[in-house]
Amino acid sequence: MINFADRLNAAIQEKNNPTVLGLDPHLEYLPDDLKVGAAASAEVPQSSALALTLFNQRLIDALYDLIPAVKLQAACYEQYGPGGLDAMRWTIDYARSKGLIVIVDGKRNDIGSTAAAYARAYLGTSSQIDGSRQSAFPADALTVNGYPGHDGVAPFAETCRSEGKGIFILVRTSNPSAGDLQDLRLEDGRRVYEAMADLVSSWGREHIGQCGYSSVGAVVGATWPQQAIRLRQRMPNAWILIPGYGAQGGTADDAVCAFGPDNSGGLVNASRSLMLAWQRQAMDHDLFDLAARREALDMRQALRTALDRRRVSPV
Amino acid sequence: MINFADRLNAAIQEKNNPTVLGLDPHLEYLPDDLKVGAAASAEVPQSSALALTLFNQRLIDALYDLIPAVKLQAACYEQYGPGGLDAMRWTIDYARSKGLIVIVDGKRNDIGSTAAAYARAYLGTSSQIDGSRQSAFPADALTVNGYPGHDGVAPFAETCRSEGKGIFILVRTSNPSAGDLQDLRLEDGRRVYEAMADLVSSWGREHIGQCGYSSVGAVVGATWPQQAIRLRQRMPNAWILIPGYGAQGGTADDAVCAFGPDNSGGLVNASRSLMLAWQRQAMDHDLFDLAARREALDMRQALRTALDRRRVSPV
Repeated sequence: MINFADRLNAAIQEKNNPTVLGLDPHLEYLPDDLKVGAAASAEVPQSSALALTLFNQRLIDALYDLIPAVKLQAACYEQYGPGGLDAMRWTIDYARSKGLIVIVDGKRNDIGSTAAAYARAYLGTSSQIDGSRQSAFPADALTVNGYPGHDGVAPFAETCRSEGKGIFILVRTSNPSAGDLQDLRLEDGRRVYEAMADLVSSWGREHIGQCGYSSVGAVVGATWPQQAIRLRQRMPNAWILIPGYGAQGGTADDAVCAFGPDNSGGLVNASRSLMLAWQRQAMDHDLFDLAARREALDMRQALRTALDRRRVSPV
Repeated sequence: MINFADRLNAAIQEKNNPTVLGLDPHLEYLPDDLKVGAAASAEVPQSSALALTLFNQRLIDALYDLIPAVKLQAACYEQYGPGGLDAMRWTIDYARSKGLIVIVDGKRNDIGSTAAAYARAYLGTSSQIDGSRQSAFPADALTVNGYPGHDGVAPFAETCRSEGKGIFILVRTSNPSAGDLQDLRLEDGRRVYEAMADLVSSWGREHIGQCGYSSVGAVVGATWPQQAIRLRQRMPNAWILIPGYGAQGGTADDAVCAFGPDNSGGLVNASRSLMLAWQRQAMDHDLFDLAARREALDMRQALRTALDRRRVSPV
């Protein structure tokens, strides 16, 4: 079983690009033609979910040779009910068929026995009524919220080891109110998010691959570059998933703050900035996939430039 | 639109019972006859999901006249894929048809725009491709993890107001490692979980119903009675959902520690202790629903006794 951290590292090196395409579709992002086609093929709400799969398929087709990974925001699928989850499953399978690493962004969390069920759902297999085992949503990695502590994270980490999968634990979220709890200062001088980083670092220690990074990684928003620099120092072995690039305001220079000193160990997610690139590029809505490809090329270059700049003037 | 807090209060008063049936089914909890029937009706994995619905239906039929609410653990359904989510949706609809309040235990959390999608998924409606709006998983309430802070919680709270729904935010989880992050002491003397309680209290202020409790409530494990007493004082207006009773070790006396001084404001979840009551009562596995009913009657009595004892000797 190849360690997830090493698989991810190889995929990023192969594409020479640490970009993750965020597949967080909403119906209002879809061009009318695509919606009309889906609406003609099924009844609501299945037609809504079908439209999401068609949208995702075109984005994956347009980008799979450029990028190593996709990240599916679970909420976007859950809001369409069981049919929406069909769309999520289909998208996972399709992305993997194109050689992409698939991250489900579910921020799941619970006590141990329930965390084990989530781990089976997204990273492993579940025992079926006939004794067989099947994957529910066969992702390569899942985002996890560590508020419940070690025994809520351990079942995920154990599944990472047995199945060659990964998790990314929320340390510093990208939203404006992230500090409400995360910035509170502890009596030992650390902030809450720094304490979470220390927990992630210790939980990840047994899952470090040959690349030097761990399959138990972290989420640190690109919107907090100063915190990211310090968090990288606190978590030298963590793969860091970096949301908040683009539409949320994070720049390439911000995003690379969470990378390791060797310019690896980070992956930068872009969702709206790629899905809605046609707006920024003043292209026809029907050409959203070509616009996303152009934007992804620009983003790849921006990240390379930012990483080169950092190599010359390390923080 | 009736405030959720008031609806919940009325439902508990009507049944004179603050018990929540936790519908957290696993296939190994099901009697063989039920599994054989489901296996004959569909292919895997749909047959696994079908078995869960049959199990849930019998539990709901056996208990709906005794209890005010059910809580569905999302992970138990997600592990069977889209068909598992069909089972969750079916169970939600069936429980509501029996007059029960339905809580989805998903511990969802994310930045604002994604939190809004989760709120639509579980508490509201999503706009469909034909312009109609439909419910994905039409629960009455959802559990939420507040680590992302105010703007990650606000979309849920706004949906609670507009749709007459509720949320329960994790404050103190019931698992043994809860303290890893939650017990850390802040420089102002509070623990992290107390700071979360204070946030919940402030977020809930605008959502207080005529009953004096808020539709923005909290989760406090029955396994931490001393903390529960202090948390009730910190959150005098919060509905508190109390997991950890029974199989996890919490007693009736432990569970009622989180109730308000008027012996209301709390609801106590029991999952395994009801679903697996046939074991404890040495009954035939096929009679799991009757065993659950007996156990629920015992639990109701135990909670009433504990509440009466507390009335005599208030903490």
